[in-house]
Amino acid sequence: MRVALGIAYRGSAYSGWQSQPSGRTVQDHVEAALAAFAAVPVSTICAGRTDAGVHAINQVVHFDTDVERSLDGWTRGTNRYLPADVAVQWSRFVDDRFHSRASARGRRYAYVLLESPVRPAIENGMAGWTFRSLDGDAMRRAAAALVGTHDFSAFRAAECQANSPVKTLRALTIERRGAYWRFDFDADAFLHHMVRNIVGSLVMVGSGVRNDGWLAEVLAARDRSLAAPTFAADGLYFLGPYYDAVHEIPDRTPALDWLP
Amino acid sequence: MRVALGIAYRGSAYSGWQSQPSGRTVQDHVEAALAAFAAVPVSTICAGRTDAGVHAINQVVHFDTDVERSLDGWTRGTNRYLPADVAVQWSRFVDDRFHSRASARGRRYAYVLLESPVRPAIENGMAGWTFRSLDGDAMRRAAAALVGTHDFSAFRAAECQANSPVKTLRALTIERRGAYWRFDFDADAFLHHMVRNIVGSLVMVGSGVRNDGWLAEVLAARDRSLAAPTFAADGLYFLGPYYDAVHEIPDRTPALDWLP
Repeated sequence: MRVALGIAYRGSAYSGWQSQPSGRTVQDHVEAALAAFAAVPVSTICAGRTDAGVHAINQVVHFDTDVERSLDGWTRGTNRYLPADVAVQWSRFVDDRFHSRASARGRRYAYVLLESPVRPAIENGMAGWTFRSLDGDAMRRAAAALVGTHDFSAFRAAECQANSPVKTLRALTIERRGAYWRFDFDADAFLHHMVRNIVGSLVMVGSGVRNDGWLAEVLAARDRSLAAPTFAADGLYFLGPYYDAVHEIPDRTPALDWLP
Repeated sequence: MRVALGIAYRGSAYSGWQSQPSGRTVQDHVEAALAAFAAVPVSTICAGRTDAGVHAINQVVHFDTDVERSLDGWTRGTNRYLPADVAVQWSRFVDDRFHSRASARGRRYAYVLLESPVRPAIENGMAGWTFRSLDGDAMRRAAAALVGTHDFSAFRAAECQANSPVKTLRALTIERRGAYWRFDFDADAFLHHMVRNIVGSLVMVGSGVRNDGWLAEVLAARDRSLAAPTFAADGLYFLGPYYDAVHEIPDRTPALDWLP
């Protein structure tokens, strides 16, 4: 049978999602915990591979197994073997047509950024930081040029393995709560470092280093060297994928309410 | 001259505020950083000693020194020597009548509690957790009995060093944001473990283990053995002290907006 899980994790202590020989990734810990609970090896496929230091609110994975356990077992039983900053939040039995990556209609990310003269402490590792004052309206005008279907090569990391640089950015909203800016991205899929590169460029516009028409020029030039440096992983949250309603996959976990 | 600082820290990695021979406390790190920046020893006095694992949004300290540095220096210069989860947020020169502890008119604490069938991950160490559903109205009715000037012996830790168990609780509010409950306390001063003991008792009322009149009985009996066990330090935030306006001490730092 096929099982889907929703997993939340704080990425600070891990070398990203994808399994590595070091064993210091979230996937390594999740698969070890599943194997400990099921008493057989388990291989997972995820909806979105996150980089080192990036957090997930609702990472969705699926795996096939002959082991029979209750949904409550797959959730709580697995959690007994996971470190304190990783936890399965829900489990569902799904049919074989469901695939955590291939079935996803889209994915959402949020970037949380502290604007303050002084560096973070409480939120260390969980928010990006800029000491510059940001102009939200200028950033929103600049961001509007990115929404739609575009070749996002300008915001693509050199090591990106995507087949095509053309993605559809369905929404990019920018809100402020006190000293924290939140950038919300919704797209069919994302290139490697795409969110962090866009945020870096938006901060250059927001702080007045570039004008609000610059982002459209960078996008059109499709040249990574024109955009801003990649912003820190600290503030990046994979909110999770979304699917056709027929699959009945939860699109959130409680930690969504944790973010500013 | 006398200098006041506002300090934010995530308490998870520390044995509380107060200096210990182990050197693993926030005070030890702050005084070492001040000494490194000022090149002379510095002794601080704080507004409220926090326990192991407890966080601070605006811990206020003061110290006397002959070393002349700018306010920006005391803030940023000191931060260069502090770990990533501790940071001075502001500095002010104050006159000798200001004393971080003795001048405080009151103190505020918040307790953040996740209500979820599954344990936290992202917010591990930064929120308490209950898997029981809580009734906010029942907790608010119970909490009303605690507001005012009372002998809080029922919620006092055995090792508490306060001269008197009589404190004035000016406000205790309970709000919910998504899966997170937030309990806000405002009092002239707090007994050791007072907030965590009250939260534990409120959760017993909210989950229906006790009725909403029980807290008034526990308070009146002044017997610690009647109240609930001490709740986890994870969810406790020292929001900071407040003073007469003449001292011009900031009553917040940006991280106040970080909390749910």
